[in-house]
Parts: sequence; structure tokens; C-alpha cells
Amino acid sequence: MTVKERVSTLKNLMKEKHIDAYIVPSFDAHQSEYVADHWRSREWISGFTGSAGTAVITNEKNGLWTDGRYYIQAAKQLEGSGIDLFKMGQIGVPKVMKWLYDTLDEGSVVGFDGKVISVSYFRSMEKEFAKKNITLNCENDLIGQLWNDRPEIPKNTIISHAIKYAGKSRVDKINKVREHMDKISADVFLLSSLDDIAWLFNIRGNDVKCNPVVTSYALVSKDKAYLFLDKDKVSKEIEEELNKDNVEVFEYNEIEKYVKNIQEKDTVVLDPNKVNSWIFTSIPKECKIVEEDNTTTYMKAIKSEEEIKNLKNCHVRDGVAMAKFIKWLKSSVGKEDITEISASDKAESFRKEQENFTQISFDSIAGHKEHAAMMHYKATPEVTYKLENKGFLLLDSGAQYLDGTTDITRTVVLGELTEEEKRDYTLVLKSNCALSRAKFLYGSTGTHLDAIAREPLWQYGIDYKCGTGHGVGYFLNVHEGPHRISPAFNHVRLEEGMIITNEPGVYKEGKHGIRTENELLVVKDQNTEFGQFMKFEEVTYCPIDLDGIVIEMLNEEEKNWLNNYHKMVYKKLSPYLSNEENKWLAHETREI
Amino acid sequence: MTVKERVSTLKNLMKEKHIDAYIVPSFDAHQSEYVADHWRSREWISGFTGSAGTAVITNEKNGLWTDGRYYIQAAKQLEGSGIDLFKMGQIGVPKVMKWLYDTLDEGSVVGFDGKVISVSYFRSMEKEFAKKNITLNCENDLIGQLWNDRPEIPKNTIISHAIKYAGKSRVDKINKVREHMDKISADVFLLSSLDDIAWLFNIRGNDVKCNPVVTSYALVSKDKAYLFLDKDKVSKEIEEELNKDNVEVFEYNEIEKYVKNIQEKDTVVLDPNKVNSWIFTSIPKECKIVEEDNTTTYMKAIKSEEEIKNLKNCHVRDGVAMAKFIKWLKSSVGKEDITEISASDKAESFRKEQENFTQISFDSIAGHKEHAAMMHYKATPEVTYKLENKGFLLLDSGAQYLDGTTDITRTVVLGELTEEEKRDYTLVLKSNCALSRAKFLYGSTGTHLDAIAREPLWQYGIDYKCGTGHGVGYFLNVHEGPHRISPAFNHVRLEEGMIITNEPGVYKEGKHGIRTENELLVVKDQNTEFGQFMKFEEVTYCPIDLDGIVIEMLNEEEKNWLNNYHKMVYKKLSPYLSNEENKWLAHETREI
Repeated sequence: MTVKERVSTLKNLMKEKHIDAYIVPSFDAHQSEYVADHWRSREWISGFTGSAGTAVITNEKNGLWTDGRYYIQAAKQLEGSGIDLFKMGQIGVPKVMKWLYDTLDEGSVVGFDGKVISVSYFRSMEKEFAKKNITLNCENDLIGQLWNDRPEIPKNTIISHAIKYAGKSRVDKINKVREHMDKISADVFLLSSLDDIAWLFNIRGNDVKCNPVVTSYALVSKDKAYLFLDKDKVSKEIEEELNKDNVEVFEYNEIEKYVKNIQEKDTVVLDPNKVNSWIFTSIPKECKIVEEDNTTTYMKAIKSEEEIKNLKNCHVRDGVAMAKFIKWLKSSVGKEDITEISASDKAESFRKEQENFTQISFDSIAGHKEHAAMMHYKATPEVTYKLENKGFLLLDSGAQYLDGTTDITRTVVLGELTEEEKRDYTLVLKSNCALSRAKFLYGSTGTHLDAIAREPLWQYGIDYKCGTGHGVGYFLNVHEGPHRISPAFNHVRLEEGMIITNEPGVYKEGKHGIRTENELLVVKDQNTEFGQFMKFEEVTYCPIDLDGIVIEMLNEEEKNWLNNYHKMVYKKLSPYLSNEENKWLAHETREI
Repeated sequence: MTVKERVSTLKNLMKEKHIDAYIVPSFDAHQSEYVADHWRSREWISGFTGSAGTAVITNEKNGLWTDGRYYIQAAKQLEGSGIDLFKMGQIGVPKVMKWLYDTLDEGSVVGFDGKVISVSYFRSMEKEFAKKNITLNCENDLIGQLWNDRPEIPKNTIISHAIKYAGKSRVDKINKVREHMDKISADVFLLSSLDDIAWLFNIRGNDVKCNPVVTSYALVSKDKAYLFLDKDKVSKEIEEELNKDNVEVFEYNEIEKYVKNIQEKDTVVLDPNKVNSWIFTSIPKECKIVEEDNTTTYMKAIKSEEEIKNLKNCHVRDGVAMAKFIKWLKSSVGKEDITEISASDKAESFRKEQENFTQISFDSIAGHKEHAAMMHYKATPEVTYKLENKGFLLLDSGAQYLDGTTDITRTVVLGELTEEEKRDYTLVLKSNCALSRAKFLYGSTGTHLDAIAREPLWQYGIDYKCGTGHGVGYFLNVHEGPHRISPAFNHVRLEEGMIITNEPGVYKEGKHGIRTENELLVVKDQNTEFGQFMKFEEVTYCPIDLDGIVIEMLNEEEKNWLNNYHKMVYKKLSPYLSNEENKWLAHETREI
């Protein structure tokens, strides 16, 4: 079926069910950013493959909402589909709810699958729509009824994350959660975010490509912990190990029964942004509910001493792979046939040689020429460019290791550059350096620091339409909250031990795209009469291509920063490289 | 009576009225930051003279809450009073409401004068206290009953702000307000903020020292406008002028009657943060209420073309006065007896010579040595220092002109400086320059830009415990919203035509205080494929003392910025100075 046909059959089914508008978000039942194929309903109905977006079908209109990373890609993929693109974040573009409110008649019915809509979103719709007597129907997974060859929920086996990698035992982590529950007087913690569950129980799976999570729910009470997942995925050894740690394992769908059986006198703590409205309605009405961000999300974001030691090691291996890749790329371009796809495959092959590698941590973004202007571009055999020895290759890539997750972007100079390319490349470096060098009073959030990164680009009338940085999991999701660096107001302080990416960029549609991304660790700076100060430490070790820089555009502080960074990169990587590779690395990290 | 005796008689009166805690904020009936003496109840009960603070008296405890500007001053003034100081904003210090909630027993009664508590604050108390069955009693102005020699509400006559200064007529302004009322379907606009009223009706008064406002309320309906103020203040000519413009004038207290007579079918728009709870309860229950920030506050903050032209002229005159003052100070210190008080008097005398001068715009802050570490220090004959020819004099001062309001700080080098003083002085300059040079994407708020100013200080473990900048009125209050530059989350975008101060500082208790403050005008920068960019233009014209600078700490961009600024200062001021003064100014603004 074409997208047009799918939309048309959905409209018929909606009529049958007396639904006037149907919302298809990009989430699974756990509000995951990246989902297993089973949950790609929004992709199925719209044809848009990006990781974030919401499709809305009404009797008369069809819309797809997505953010700045995907404007260009979505416009292409929606061509001829009869679905209108709504560019979220642009002035004058209504949000989904506002649009529905304005579009629908009094008394209309809005439908969706309650499993993929969070409690918070459900409530805000309820509130917004009440004024126009619009009601919600969350009973029907209409896409599920239409999608004949829908993939199953994955069946991959899980592993136990060994203590030498995980650092802290699941018993310790669960006890820490219980301490928090005591503090807020909660009896039961209902947890449904997959990365939180994987972290808390020291388990990893393979249910979502690039994200080593396990499709599951969890309940933690004062003396027990329950894990709900497809038991076929759990070996006898792992189940015994979990039982020994006082964790009981049940089938995925049994969560409903267990939630329904929570005692009426109990106080349940949960995150309304993470728990779906279907499971929420199973909680006995008499229970007291405490709502807050999952405490596990905060605990997980602050890496332990052991995790920091380990993740630095994995970044060294990742840097070795990247250095080998860049060396190969710069010496081979123009001599061999290399495409965007074969280049990113090559980078992956260097990573595969590294110890503890399990898989890549997200679909590599490898963009040459104007392809790189699409922030989340994915090369396909039909559109991939053959690399020429001019301009750049932007490669945003990373890997999952047993001892950490990496996310790095380098924009490699392939040959001759225009003046504009050189200037933009240098501005991105200045932006990256400005944030990396920043020191800040404890208590600052990513909202406060965002403009420090953008300022060098703003001086030239350039902005990037995305955040500056995101948290990164530990052998977990490559995007991890609760902290971020972005202009959106965020109350989460940057704490010692948090990892955050630093990835400013220049994206000129039809021209070129440049991004330089390192991961940063938040560490303490001095404590003075004015308070505790904080700073960043680079944990990504890979040369930044000096061939793109207009040296006169850098001031002394910036040159010093770059030279010191490169000195560290050489020191970290050279023990693992051959003499010939080190000769090359010495040149790539030379002082400027 | 001593403060102790006042508190004790208040406690007796509270017992009589069955009030368990009594709140005395620093506001008047219009939520003004600066108030006429009549409204200084909090000062009367506590002895603390700062502009911001709340006193709370319970049967057993007495507290005074104030912010970082006043920690040192309040601690001194509260000594021996039996009133505890609560340093607002410090970690672990409870807010007034939280403290009351924790301190009071179930079923207690909290009292205050409903005229000085805003609707918003009333509601949050109601909500917070309900959980403990604590009720509110807003009927009694107990301080008014105890304060025998309480000053009257001022009786000063008002002036009409001539169109050549005001730029837009009151008819035009009121019509613009009505356009907005139409858009939000409001029939009546209830306005009680004094600066908004003065701006809207093009009137100015003399009721609050330094703030040319008139104690008044206003109502704007679709075809009429009503002004409520002491009619003795209004000359026959001005009343006729107002009547001609379709504005009717009534006695101040008649506001209650007029509000009670609003028609039941009408929709009333008001700002719950500005309207007091006493007048709010007079609105007929049947009326629909629309709540929003006063639209006049936004209109007033965006200066018109005429206002911008005028205010630049007034800043030239203010700069001339400041330059004469600095020349006098630097050449006289160590030779004449100069105190902090006589120095600020001298600055005022130079301002008085200027055309259109009416009064100073706030109490000058003139601090020598460690006095300057108190952000809002006010010299008194008992504590004023005699200036020595070493260290600094920090002078934060400004004036009200018919064509604008000024606010400027210069830290003048009086002689030898320590290395630490020089370094700190240079860091403040770097901070000031960082914000002044900043360019930013349209849509950014002061929250986003704040860290750009702090970053150079944060690099050295220094922070200032206040915002970076505030709006400034036009021949009106020296502090004016809704925009500001501060880490507190603020959704107000910086718009073309807004004025904002740029005043980073270093305050080292017991050592020294340094601040450099210019006013900035928000203007458009380039418009590119990435959006509209904005930047700042300096409207304060006065040399920044080069004697304090460690030149090696400045980079090229900073040196260029300072040299260009000084070039402009010379160009703006020199036409109004003598040859001898210009010789001095040329040296003070020399290229570095």
C-alpha cells in the first residue's frame, strides 16, 4: 500500500469508530526516543522515517509535525503523500494540540492508542480540548488493526551487565532508589522507561537497534523488585542471578495485573512524562500518586567513579578507531571509490576491531557536500555521494561498548575548501571551544550555557536549529536526560559526573554542513567565597582537522585550548597506534 | 519608640485581633519598588531601610527577608532589634511562605494589609496555607494604627509630559491599549502600576523620591478613560487638557466605587501581580476576569523612535556631567577633603547644570574601599569615608530629565591599586564588553544572555549575586520590566527599542567593590537564512577609567571594542566641553 492508500484506509476505520482525528506519535509504550520496528506506526502511516515526529489524520486534513533536524528530510519524504509538513519551532506554526483544537468542530472525538501517549500528554489534551467539548478515545490501536505485516516485539535475549563494567550492583542501586522512596514516603515505584530499567537492574538487551535496552516494565516496592519482560529472553542463569538479588521476573503483559493489585493504602511514585496512559489507568483509584521525574534518571545521569574510569577507556578505543578512519579517509579520497555509505562502513569496521565493542550507538550520519546540511541525514544507496577530494565529509557516529557509549562528530577536510567553508569551519571550532572552556557557578543549567556556544556563530548571523548538547548513557541510549544544553528552559543543574555533548554546527541548505562534537564530563573547578564553580573535561579523544582552520580567526585562548586538546589526544591514542600511524597523528595534532 | 518597642506593641495589637503572624512587605498599594514615605511600614517596624524586604512578626519570632544586594546592610541595621535576618536566595534559607507554614500551628491566622499584597501573592498564600488550615485576615493595617507620625500620602502637583518629550500623545497610547483590549475581548482595563499610568496618560508627578510617578489608579473602557488621584494635585489647565483627550479625573479613593460599579456583563483585564487584593475584591463577582501582564508594561518598554532620539540627547548631557565629575574627582582627590557623600553631591551638582534635569533617578551609591562591596550602599554622615588617593570610588548614579532617565556606574581609580584590584577591575570590563559585543538570534531572552556577561568572571571563580541588567524607564522609574538580564527564567524576548543596563561587578566583602554600568539599546543586526539577529548599541557616553586596566588581560576584540566606545564618547561629549576639558577627555579616551 502507498502512504496515500494507508491514510485512506485509516480514515475509513476512523469513520467506523466515530473518531474525527487520530494521533500517531513516534513513541513505543515506554516513551522511548528510538523504538523497535514493531512501534514504527508513525513511519508506517506517513512514510517519514525520522526519529521524532507526530502524524495526525482528520477526516479532511493530514499533518506531520517534526523538528528542525528533520525539516528537509521530512519535506522530501512527504512529497506526494497528501500529508502537510508542520515545522515545529518555527514562528506561526501551531503545535499539534492547538491545531487540532482550531481544526476540529465542537464535540469531536480525538483517538489514539493509550499505550503510546504519556499521562502528561493525555492530561494536557483533556484540559485543552474540554473548552470545545472535544473528547478522547484511547481504546484503539487503529494502526495495529491495519498494519498486516507489522513486526513482532523483539525476542532477543538479555545479558547481565557485569559488575566490572556496571560499577555498582543492582542491589546497591535498588537500595538507593528505596532510600529515595523513603524520603518521599512512597511504597511503590512504577518504572517504564527502558534505559532506566536497564541501568537499575544491570541488564542489557537488543530490542531497539543501537539502544541496548529491553522491552520491559518494573515495579520496586520496599522489599521486592519486579521485572516484567518476555521471559523467553531470560536465561536460567540470569533469572537465578536476579532472584538471588531479590528481583522477581514476570511476563511483560503481567504488569497490568500487578499494577491493578497494588494495595489501596499504598503511595505510588511515577513519572507522568514516561508512564503511558494505558498502564496509569490500571492503578487503583484509591492509591495516592506522587509524580516526579524518575529518580533513576537523575541517578543514572551522574556517572559513578567506576563508570567514569571505564568510559574514558572506551573513548580511547573509540578515538583509536576514529583516528585510523580519518587517516584512511584523508589518504584514500580521490584515489579509491568511496561513498558516504562505504565511508561510514569503514569507520564501523575500525570500531569493530576494538575490545568490548557490541554495536554502533546510532545510525551514522555521513554527509558530503550539501547532504551534510541535513543534521540527521542518512545516506541510502540511491542518494549516496561518491566522495570527491574537495569539501568535507561530516561523520557523526558512535558505538556501544560494554564499558560505555560514544558519540562523536568530525568534519573531515577532503581537499580544497571555499573561503566560506573555511570560515564556517573555523566558527564551529570557536563555538565548540567557547563551551568547552566555559566555567560556571554551580547551579547553572544547560539553558544558561547554551548561548556561550552560539555566540561566535551569532556574530556572523548563523544559528543551528537544534540544541547544543545532550546527555549520553553508559552502554545505554546515546541520548539521555534529564540535563541538556539548549535554549529551552530546563531546571536541571549540571552536576559533577554528568556527561554532555558539545556539538555546535553550521548547516547551509544546498551548500554544506559542518559539526564538531566532543563529549564533556562535568567536573568541579575551584570553590571560592562566591561559591562552587564547575568546568568541563573532554572525554572524546580524536584530532580536529587542522586543514579547515583560518588561524587568524582564532584568539590566543582558542589556540591554547586547541593545542592542549591535541596534546592530550596524542598522549591518549599514541600507545595504541603503529609508528606510521603515530607519525600521522603527530602531524594532525601539531601545535598551531 | 525603638524597633523593639514597636514590635512589642504590634504583638499586643495582634493578640487583640487574634492574628498569629503579621506580614509587612515593602510595597505600597501599587506594588511599587520604591514607595512614598507614607508606605514605609516595613522600615518603620524593622529599622531596615533597603528598598526590598519583607518583615514577618509572629507571637514568638520576628524575621526580615531581603536579597543579596542588602545582606550586609540588613545585618547591620537589624543588630539588637530581635529580628532575625533571612538571606533570600541562599541555599537552605526558607521563603517567607514556607517559613510561616512550618512555624505556625494548624488553624493559625496570618494578617496583613490587603492594599499592599498583590492578588497573586494572596492566592499563593491561600493555596499554601490551606493544607494546614491557616487562614488569612487582610482587613487590618496594623502598622497604620500604631504609627503615630506616619507621613501623609504626598500632595505634589502633577505635570503634563509635553508631546515633544513624550513622543506619542495619550490619545494615541490609549487607543493602542484599546486595540489590544479588542483583541483579547476585554471591556475594562484596571491599571494600578504607577509607572504604567504615568506613561499611558503622559503625566508625571513627584510622589516618590526619584520616581516621577503619581499615586493613582486608572480604568480604561472602550470609550472612556478614568484617572483616580488626589484632585488637589491637578491644575485646572491639566484637568481640561485631560478632559479634552476624553480622560475623566476622580478622587483617588473613588476607584473602589467605580470598580464596584463595573457592569456584570463586562470582561475586566488586569495584572494579578500588580493589582492589590483589596481593590480586586471590589470587582463584581459576575465579571469575567482576564489576567495577563499589563499590556502597557510591554508598550512602555519598547521605546518609540522619538523617545530613542530624545533619550540619546539626555545621555549626552548626563555624560557631560559625569565627565566633569570624574575630571574633578581625579584631580582633587588627596588635595581636598572629599567624602563619599560630598563626592556624590558634586556629581549631582554637575547634573543640575544640565538642561531638562528634574531630579536624581535613585539614591546615589558612592562607595570607597570596602564600602563599595555593598551593592546598594548608602553613605551616611556617620559612616562616610574620606576619600584617599588609592583604590577606587564606585559611583552608581543617574538622573531624571524631561527627555529620559539615566543610570550609570563608573568605578574611578583614585590612586595606587593592588594587583588584585587591577585584575578584578579588568575582569569587570571584560564582562561588560562580552555582553555589549554580543549578537543574538531574535527570540533570545535575558536568561540566555546572562552567562555571556558572567563567563569572564566565572573563569576566575567570581560571581555577582544579582542580575546583570534591568530595563530603564523614560523619564520614569529607573528599574522597569518586563525584560531583564538574569539567570532567573524570563520569557520576555529582547525586542528592538528596549533599553537594558549592563552592570557586572566584583564585590569582595571587607575589600573592594567594582562595577561598570552602561545602558544598552536593543537594535537589529543582520537578517539571514538563519533568522533575524539582534545586537546592542551603547547609549551611555562616559569614559571608562583606563588607569585600572591590565592591558595584557584584554584580547584584540576587547581592545577594539573599548577603543571604539571611547572614540564615540569623545565625539558625543566634546562639543559640550571646554578646550581644557577636551584635552583631559582625549587622554581619558585614548586608544590602548
